[in-house]
Amino acid sequence: MHDWAYLRPLLRANDRKIVLLVLDGLGGMPMGPVGPTELEYANTPVMDALAADGTLGQTIPVAPGIAPGSGPAHLALFGYDPLHYTVGRGALAAAGVGLDLQPGDVVARGNFATLDAEGRIVDRRAGRIGTAEAAPLVERLNRIQLPGVEVTVRPVREYRFVLRLRGQGLNPDLDDTDPQQTGVPPRPVRARTPQAETTAALLNRWVAEAQRLLADQPKANGVLLRGFSTDPALPRFGDWFGLHAVAIAVYPMYKGVARLVGMDVLDFDGDTPADQFAAAARVWPEYDFFFIHIKKTDSKGEDGDFYGKAKIIEQVDRALPALLDLKPDVLIITGDHSTPAMLRSHSWHPVPFLLWAPQTARSDNQYRFGETACAQGGLGTFPAVQTMPLALAHAGRLKKFGA
Amino acid sequence: MHDWAYLRPLLRANDRKIVLLVLDGLGGMPMGPVGPTELEYANTPVMDALAADGTLGQTIPVAPGIAPGSGPAHLALFGYDPLHYTVGRGALAAAGVGLDLQPGDVVARGNFATLDAEGRIVDRRAGRIGTAEAAPLVERLNRIQLPGVEVTVRPVREYRFVLRLRGQGLNPDLDDTDPQQTGVPPRPVRARTPQAETTAALLNRWVAEAQRLLADQPKANGVLLRGFSTDPALPRFGDWFGLHAVAIAVYPMYKGVARLVGMDVLDFDGDTPADQFAAAARVWPEYDFFFIHIKKTDSKGEDGDFYGKAKIIEQVDRALPALLDLKPDVLIITGDHSTPAMLRSHSWHPVPFLLWAPQTARSDNQYRFGETACAQGGLGTFPAVQTMPLALAHAGRLKKFGA
Repeated sequence: MHDWAYLRPLLRANDRKIVLLVLDGLGGMPMGPVGPTELEYANTPVMDALAADGTLGQTIPVAPGIAPGSGPAHLALFGYDPLHYTVGRGALAAAGVGLDLQPGDVVARGNFATLDAEGRIVDRRAGRIGTAEAAPLVERLNRIQLPGVEVTVRPVREYRFVLRLRGQGLNPDLDDTDPQQTGVPPRPVRARTPQAETTAALLNRWVAEAQRLLADQPKANGVLLRGFSTDPALPRFGDWFGLHAVAIAVYPMYKGVARLVGMDVLDFDGDTPADQFAAAARVWPEYDFFFIHIKKTDSKGEDGDFYGKAKIIEQVDRALPALLDLKPDVLIITGDHSTPAMLRSHSWHPVPFLLWAPQTARSDNQYRFGETACAQGGLGTFPAVQTMPLALAHAGRLKKFGA
Repeated sequence: MHDWAYLRPLLRANDRKIVLLVLDGLGGMPMGPVGPTELEYANTPVMDALAADGTLGQTIPVAPGIAPGSGPAHLALFGYDPLHYTVGRGALAAAGVGLDLQPGDVVARGNFATLDAEGRIVDRRAGRIGTAEAAPLVERLNRIQLPGVEVTVRPVREYRFVLRLRGQGLNPDLDDTDPQQTGVPPRPVRARTPQAETTAALLNRWVAEAQRLLADQPKANGVLLRGFSTDPALPRFGDWFGLHAVAIAVYPMYKGVARLVGMDVLDFDGDTPADQFAAAARVWPEYDFFFIHIKKTDSKGEDGDFYGKAKIIEQVDRALPALLDLKPDVLIITGDHSTPAMLRSHSWHPVPFLLWAPQTARSDNQYRFGETACAQGGLGTFPAVQTMPLALAHAGRLKKFGA
C-alpha cells in the first residue's frame, strides 16, 4: 500500500470532523500469565461506553512481529506504509523542533557528550545536562562556518540538538559517529558511498571545530552525531485524504511526524489531556482532522509502571467528555504500538482500536475497551495503515467505488 | 511478501529456541451442522493449558478459498509465499528422497504402471507393488543411458520413483505423460515451449527404453511421469531468519520441503510423536529452530476418520510434556492446512494456531485449543506466511524497527 490513488476519485468534501486520539504505546499485557492488561485494569467508563456504542478491532502497526519505533508507527496510522516510506532519525528530529527540511539538506541528531583527556567517551549524554545549560552551547556551535554550506544547529531538549547542512551536492549516506558505547572515542563521519565523501569531510571539519569550541566545558566537551538523513519528501496527508489536519501534541517528535506529512501543528498552553482537548475546542471550526497525541502511556510502559500507565489512561478517560462535547463525527482511540509495562519496551503485539461514529459504526457486542475485547471486535485484526480510509468512510467522505 | 528484506537489519542472535510443531491437516470440521471439530472433540489437557497461557489465532495457508497441497502449505509456514515461490512436484519428490538438485536439472515423479497388450493403462499404480518389489526394477531403470545427460532413478515408496536428468540445455517445461485415467495409453512427453523440445525427445527415448526393460513384468510393465520441474533455488531459511534449523519428520515429502529451504534433516529411530520429541531432545543444544512434522492427522482426515484423527491429536498431546521439558522459548502448534474428516480432503478452511511463549505471549481469555477459540484468539486471522516473524519476535530475535 504505497499510495492512495484509488481513494482520490472517491473523496468527497463535507463538514464532518474526525478525531484520531493516539495513546502512545497503548497496547499492553497482563503482568503474569493471565490477568488484565493496563487498559483492561484501568477504570474507563467513558471509553467503555464508546466501545459499547462503536466498533472495536486491533491493528498491526507495521507488520506481524515488528516492534516499531514511534516514527514508523505514526506514519502507519497516517496512511504511510512504513516499509515503503522511511524517514531518517535526523529528519524526524528536525521536524520535531520545527526546523524545515528541503530536498538536498542533510540533517543529524546530535548529543552533547563527555570526553576524557584522551578523547574517549565517558558519558554519551554529557551527564544529561538540562535544556537551559545546553542553550548557550548550541549558540556556540551555531558560530561554526563551513565553505559553501549553510549550517544550522537547533536545541531539542536537554543534551540533544539537531544539525542541518544546506547546500549543493550534499549526501546523507553516512555512518553515525556515536559508537553507542563509552570508553572509546567518537567515530569519524564515514561516507558509505563515494557520493557522500564531500559531506563526510565537511562534517568531520564541523566536529573538530565543535570539539574545540566546547573544550572548556566540564561535561559537554564533545559531540556525537547520528541518523544522518534528508527530507523524506512525503506526499501530503491533506492531499491524499482531502482533509485539513492539525496535530495537538506535547512532545517534539510527534509534532515532527505531523509536520513531515504536512499537518498544521498547534501551539497551546499546558500538557495534560484536558489541555489538549481544550486546544482542540479552540480551533474546532478551522480543521476537519485532529490528531491528538498522548505521550505518557508509552513512558509509563517503558518504565515498567503498570499502574502508572493505567492511571494515565484513566486521566484521558476523565477528560474525554470535553472532547465529546465538541461532537466529533468520527472518534478513533488507539495506540501507535504496544508498550506493555511487563516488557518495558515497544512491542509487536496488536494494538487496541476503538472506532466511534454515531451514525455508521456497527456495534459488535463488545462493551469494554481492552485487548481481549478488541481481538473479538467487529473490525477484526487489520494493518494500522488502513486506519485513514476507515475514518474517511465513517465521516461520509468517500463515495461509492464503481457502479 | 516475496522476501524478508525488512527483517534482515532487525535480526538479533540469541540462544532462545523455537519449536514449530505441525500437525498435518490439523484444521477440521464438525461431522454435522453443529458439534465439535476433531481438535475440539479430542481430549487435550496439555494443549489446552498452553492455549490458556498463550495466544490463539487462525491462519490462511495460501490465500482465502485455496486448499493447498502439503508443499505450498509448508512453504507458507516457513515464510515462503507459495504464490511467488513455486516448487514443482518433481523437485519436492527429489528433495524428499535426498536426491540433490542443481540449477538446470530436470526431475519428475514417476509411477510404475500396468499396461495391457495394446499399451493402454490398466492400473496407474501397478497394483501398488511394494517397496521391496520395486527396488530391483528401479535398478533396471538406472541402466538406461542417454546421450550427454546423466540419468538417475531413485525409489520413493511402493510404486513411486523419482527421475533426474542432469546435463546442459535441459528444460522442464513439459507436459505429464500420466493421463490420470485408465483405458488410454500414456501420453508422450510433450514440450510446452520450443526450448524444451530436446528434453522431451530425450525423455521419450528414456520412456521407450524403460518400457522395453520392464516388458517381462506382470504388473510394473510401464512408467508414468509427471511434475517435471527443476531446482527451485529457494532462498535459505537460515539466512532469511538467522536460525540454525532442523526438521524432524517421518515422511519423505516433508523432509524434502525442509531440505529445499536449507534445513538440516534429522535421522532418528521410530515414527511416533514421542520418538520425534526424543529426537529433538537429542539434538536440542545444536539448533535453535525445530520443525516437527506429524503426518497422521492428515492421513486420518483423508480417510474420513473423525475419531481416528482426534486420537492422533490426543497421542501428540500425551507426548507433549517431553517436548515442554526441553523448555522451548517459543512453541507454535498448528497445521499446514485443514483436512476435515467430513470432507476427506485438504480444504481451504483457516487453520488453528497456538502460540506459546511464556515471557511475551499476550493471554486472550481462550482456554481450549480448537477452531472456534482460535477464531476469537488474540492473534486474529492472519496469513500463514507471517508465522516466522511472529516466532522471531516472541523469541526476542528482532530489534525495534525505526526510531
